[in-house]
Amino acid sequence: MGTLGDAFLARQRLLVVAPHPDDETLGCAGTIARVKSLGGQAYVMVVSVGGITQHGRGAGGRGPGFVSGPERRAEFDDVMKFLDLDDYEVLFDEDALHERLDTVPQRMLIEQIEYAAALSLEKLRPSMVLIPARIYNQDHAATFRACLAATRPASAGARYLVPNVLVYDNTTAFWSVPDEWFVPNVFIDISAHLDTKAEALRRYSSQVRPAPFHGSPEGAQITAAFHGGQVSIAAAEAFQALRLTW
Amino acid sequence: MGTLGDAFLARQRLLVVAPHPDDETLGCAGTIARVKSLGGQAYVMVVSVGGITQHGRGAGGRGPGFVSGPERRAEFDDVMKFLDLDDYEVLFDEDALHERLDTVPQRMLIEQIEYAAALSLEKLRPSMVLIPARIYNQDHAATFRACLAATRPASAGARYLVPNVLVYDNTTAFWSVPDEWFVPNVFIDISAHLDTKAEALRRYSSQVRPAPFHGSPEGAQITAAFHGGQVSIAAAEAFQALRLTW
Amino acid sequence: MGTLGDAFLARQRLLVVAPHPDDETLGCAGTIARVKSLGGQAYVMVVSVGGITQHGRGAGGRGPGFVSGPERRAEFDDVMKFLDLDDYEVLFDEDALHERLDTVPQRMLIEQIEYAAALSLEKLRPSMVLIPARIYNQDHAATFRACLAATRPASAGARYLVPNVLVYDNTTAFWSVPDEWFVPNVFIDISAHLDTKAEALRRYSSQVRPAPFHGSPEGAQITAAFHGGQVSIAAAEAFQALRLTW
Amino acid sequence: MGTLGDAFLARQRLLVVAPHPDDETLGCAGTIARVKSLGGQAYVMVVSVGGITQHGRGAGGRGPGFVSGPERRAEFDDVMKFLDLDDYEVLFDEDALHERLDTVPQRMLIEQIEYAAALSLEKLRPSMVLIPARIYNQDHAATFRACLAATRPASAGARYLVPNVLVYDNTTAFWSVPDEWFVPNVFIDISAHLDTKAEALRRYSSQVRPAPFHGSPEGAQITAAFHGGQVSIAAAEAFQALRLTW
Amino acid sequence: MGTLGDAFLARQRLLVVAPHPDDETLGCAGTIARVKSLGGQAYVMVVSVGGITQHGRGAGGRGPGFVSGPERRAEFDDVMKFLDLDDYEVLFDEDALHERLDTVPQRMLIEQIEYAAALSLEKLRPSMVLIPARIYNQDHAATFRACLAATRPASAGARYLVPNVLVYDNTTAFWSVPDEWFVPNVFIDISAHLDTKAEALRRYSSQVRPAPFHGSPEGAQITAAFHGGQVSIAAAEAFQALRLTW
Amino acid sequence: MGTLGDAFLARQRLLVVAPHPDDETLGCAGTIARVKSLGGQAYVMVVSVGGITQHGRGAGGRGPGFVSGPERRAEFDDVMKFLDLDDYEVLFDEDALHERLDTVPQRMLIEQIEYAAALSLEKLRPSMVLIPARIYNQDHAATFRACLAATRPASAGARYLVPNVLVYDNTTAFWSVPDEWFVPNVFIDISAHLDTKAEALRRYSSQVRPAPFHGSPEGAQITAAFHGGQVSIAAAEAFQALRLTW
Repeated sequence: MGTLGDAFLARQRLLVVAPHPDDETLGCAGTIARVKSLGGQAYVMVVSVGGITQHGRGAGGRGPGFVSGPERRAEFDDVMKFLDLDDYEVLFDEDALHERLDTVPQRMLIEQIEYAAALSLEKLRPSMVLIPARIYNQDHAATFRACLAATRPASAGARYLVPNVLVYDNTTAFWSVPDEWFVPNVFIDISAHLDTKAEALRRYSSQVRPAPFHGSPEGAQITAAFHGGQVSIAAAEAFQALRLTW
Repeated sequence: MGTLGDAFLARQRLLVVAPHPDDETLGCAGTIARVKSLGGQAYVMVVSVGGITQHGRGAGGRGPGFVSGPERRAEFDDVMKFLDLDDYEVLFDEDALHERLDTVPQRMLIEQIEYAAALSLEKLRPSMVLIPARIYNQDHAATFRACLAATRPASAGARYLVPNVLVYDNTTAFWSVPDEWFVPNVFIDISAHLDTKAEALRRYSSQVRPAPFHGSPEGAQITAAFHGGQVSIAAAEAFQALRLTW
Repeated sequence: MGTLGDAFLARQRLLVVAPHPDDETLGCAGTIARVKSLGGQAYVMVVSVGGITQHGRGAGGRGPGFVSGPERRAEFDDVMKFLDLDDYEVLFDEDALHERLDTVPQRMLIEQIEYAAALSLEKLRPSMVLIPARIYNQDHAATFRACLAATRPASAGARYLVPNVLVYDNTTAFWSVPDEWFVPNVFIDISAHLDTKAEALRRYSSQVRPAPFHGSPEGAQITAAFHGGQVSIAAAEAFQALRLTW
Repeated sequence: MGTLGDAFLARQRLLVVAPHPDDETLGCAGTIARVKSLGGQAYVMVVSVGGITQHGRGAGGRGPGFVSGPERRAEFDDVMKFLDLDDYEVLFDEDALHERLDTVPQRMLIEQIEYAAALSLEKLRPSMVLIPARIYNQDHAATFRACLAATRPASAGARYLVPNVLVYDNTTAFWSVPDEWFVPNVFIDISAHLDTKAEALRRYSSQVRPAPFHGSPEGAQITAAFHGGQVSIAAAEAFQALRLTW
Repeated sequence: MGTLGDAFLARQRLLVVAPHPDDETLGCAGTIARVKSLGGQAYVMVVSVGGITQHGRGAGGRGPGFVSGPERRAEFDDVMKFLDLDDYEVLFDEDALHERLDTVPQRMLIEQIEYAAALSLEKLRPSMVLIPARIYNQDHAATFRACLAATRPASAGARYLVPNVLVYDNTTAFWSVPDEWFVPNVFIDISAHLDTKAEALRRYSSQVRPAPFHGSPEGAQITAAFHGGQVSIAAAEAFQALRLTW
Repeated sequence: MGTLGDAFLARQRLLVVAPHPDDETLGCAGTIARVKSLGGQAYVMVVSVGGITQHGRGAGGRGPGFVSGPERRAEFDDVMKFLDLDDYEVLFDEDALHERLDTVPQRMLIEQIEYAAALSLEKLRPSMVLIPARIYNQDHAATFRACLAATRPASAGARYLVPNVLVYDNTTAFWSVPDEWFVPNVFIDISAHLDTKAEALRRYSSQVRPAPFHGSPEGAQITAAFHGGQVSIAAAEAFQALRLTW
């Protein structure tokens, strides 16, 4: 497995699409680190960065607290460099759009992902795209739908068809109606990269919550151990393959 | 069962979130009445009340007929008093938003339910929240999604985490794609409160339709008898538990 | 089967609702042709026609290419006449709405389909409505939802209740999350009308792509042979019945 | 609807396959009565009749009580005559097999239904087959699976392919895991035949339980009113179409 | 939550049905310990204990190794005492049936669980039954189906109807087809009883495997932390409610 | 895609498990041929070969016709050689078991697949296992369940854990209840091997049916074109990945 998996991942040109900074790290930091360590390429496209007043982020961890767009952008830049991405991009950085992607025409998101953005599918031509899970969050749902449209089957020669499309995990993906449950079918061994993932999460300091929160660095380690145990390895990231073309 | 169920319900602080007036009664009037009769607390939050021209509400029950916002609001006030609610609230009463919650940014709904409204989760801290089913109606769908987001898992101490979240029935919940079908797993005995429920429905006089319409007072009684028969009691309201925390 | 199916289809007053021109043909041209050949009635309501710059439609089949609204409208008129429809209608022909139906309040679409349009359910009173599948495309999703709302159960006498509601196939309906997969349960024999369907598709010349694209005329023939083989006939169109009332 | 539904049902040659006597009546007596009243044909195939000691059937309705095979067979004959079936058949009448169809090789059941029995698909060539829902009961599950196999697609000319296959309701079909839930998509108007259905159920005197039991004659009437209300008619039987071929 | 949950659990008369010894501990040991510590009652019914040659249990943890029935029975007795069960029972202890419950007529299992066994539903009249998940293992699948049949709705007065039926988790429940996935909706706080659970697992010494195996004591702790994190507590056991009656 | 897919497939050690001869060819002949042509290894394990009287196989293609076990075995040997398998095996060749695998204890099948057979997982240690879809046929269902059990997660070091487990298509996989529908997520390009697949099917002369039967050689070509069109290639075999470990 190790050898075959290494060989397969080493040749990938990976694009991770994330609604907001830190989603790519919660879901795929271990896989990104492994692909990079094997000599593959990895790119991240974040849809929206912006400032927002969040409840439960005030003094003492309660009440309203404001985190600015530039603050989150700086954290993102730091983590992208820490994870040694080949390139990364933010599509929208207006505060007015942040956490309001449900008000953006879907077509506008689709066009960016499909061909307009610097790291669009048409320009980057990735071998594998990792897209976010549908969850209760309106930005995640909008990004998921836009990714699905952008990776739709194409007439050969007219558009670039991404051969491998997978949904990545989210520690809140379980909070859903049963028919939208995240059911993984791909497990990527990140045993050698779990520390890197935890460190990347900690660098998103405006987003860190204490254990036992599912999205805390400790929670991410438990999740990796949980999915690892499902395939008898120390740590894994889990994915749901929508289309693999071999 | 009776004794255990009584003990459990008697201690609840119940919040019902309804897209429009009468949804809370169609789905939960019997449960509200039972909780109140046992000494528990019950609250209702309605998202939108407004005037609207409805087809099939004109003269003779056909063609366009207008029902005003104040008319529906008065019916709602009357029923809330009849059911002896501890408190109730309407989030939006502009005609322009009524039946158009799909045009409201989801975040605006979520913030209200989560912490901004008078009966928000953060302020009321209910032990149990009853949320509407996803159905074809755009306001119901928007309210369902917003409730799901507002009840998402929280970092302990930072936000209030509602321990019990259930979806309540809707007599039109069957008109759906199979994967969104309403599949109840909680049955609450309302045998002693069925008359109260029927009376509350009749008080929504602008909304009453004649039998055999599923949403008529007679239709609601048949639905209660149907779900009661499933657990061998005279009448029940059915719910789909999404998260119970014991 | 032939005899019973013929008798059933011959008496139908069929309405096909399509997001854009050519969707009705990809999904139902064979059924339309058969119903017409048997003496039944068939109508088409298209929600949106507009001009759009499509990627992969430029010179040599790559890069951006513009197809205007009038151009698509002319193709649509031609096909409607070729298929001998009893009547047809386009709800919206503004470029600004085309491929942006997710920005239109759902209620506006529902009202058109339910009672406002010339071929609305209330005016046409069809015996059978064929509605588009939910897919990744935002206009298809919006149209599907609006059709579901417009065909909701009604109080008898107040609104027209369509007895038969079916979802028609789309050659991209497979590109979906598993829980939204198109699962057909009705197969209509179009063996005698497959050539008509292929010709109608070719007349949408701005939309034709070469084989092996799933939506090419050849792809549609393979799809018809595939579904036909499932019931041991030469060619079939597949549908998912949501409600049949007998 | 009435006219079209009547015309469609009047021409059917209907076969109902039931695990045990009374299942066909609980699920389809109204439809059988309507098809017969319209001049169509109706047949019933029961898989197993046998004697059994049932818990809760003893003195006073509690503890063990024995109902013999001949007793149940006599009830069945009486009801078949009351419903005026064109013909009916029992496949197995050994006590040793009754409630133990899970121990019978599936192939043995399939062969009977497919071509060996007097009313087999190959001999009767029905236009429509109504098969039982998968439920917790082992005989129902075995019969459902055998019916599915017997109605599988066939090479044209080699075997008879039943054009219309539907699953009929069962008042216990709701007691299931969510993914096996009975989701009806066909509603047959039995308003004029509800009394006939209730009378047929009462004639199965060994099986009658008092209300509010879901399977009591009163329970069946509530279920019919419930499904009727879903399509705004007085009473309906509900079915899940698996394959309709037109 | 704590107070309400404590009050609810303290009054339960709990029955856990397990296919084999240790399944009840993997899924419910924390809940059993909590119910007992609160003054409630807890019972365990194991369906089969027997000797078996297991692959991967030989010398060095590879190849065939035999574990005898009496050996497993002794472990079970020890754990039952350690967890302070009010009573417990083994239905079948023949080696010939162990791991072969798919060859036992379902009716035989159902009768035992329903009324024949010492701890049957009819005799024990539990307020809550915890049943095993459907998984790939034939004994688990058979036990799940038998429990579903034994807890089916009953005519009031004739049979005992268990008000609360839940499926408990299994660390291999994820290895399944997507539609049979275990989707929990009840979370029971076992933070104070996690050590007890781990110790109970270790006492099943013939069944202990080393980490990172999902079913190891360490794996069970990770699973409890994983589900705990989903509701922001330290450790939880997860359940899927099939029927709660209040 | 081609290059990456070739590299991935070239290194596989593939095991196909088939209920009966020709299932492996209908589902995977193109993939087997491609893996072999790339230098990979491919093995086939058939569970049962036997003689059987099939309805619709008599004179003129109707009525009963007998095909003997040795006849089917000879066809199988011929195809295995034609496809150049590295090795192949038949587990059971008794007529009494053929089409009756539902009467075999599951454990007996599991043991064979897991470690007892010559090509068992433990002995062969395949990198990828292709298992049959659950369908109405009892032998397919039994084989599917046994494969699921045999590939269950294992304690590292104790048993061999197959990293990649996929379900292969079956031209009758569509004849199922909606929740058991075959939903492919892996597409393997067999454009260069479609003729080989058709020829292999024709060599199973006792099983060949004429078009438009879904399982005819022509039907298999249409199915391959249909799935190919979904990813814009000429021909593909479709699979449902249950577990991929990279």
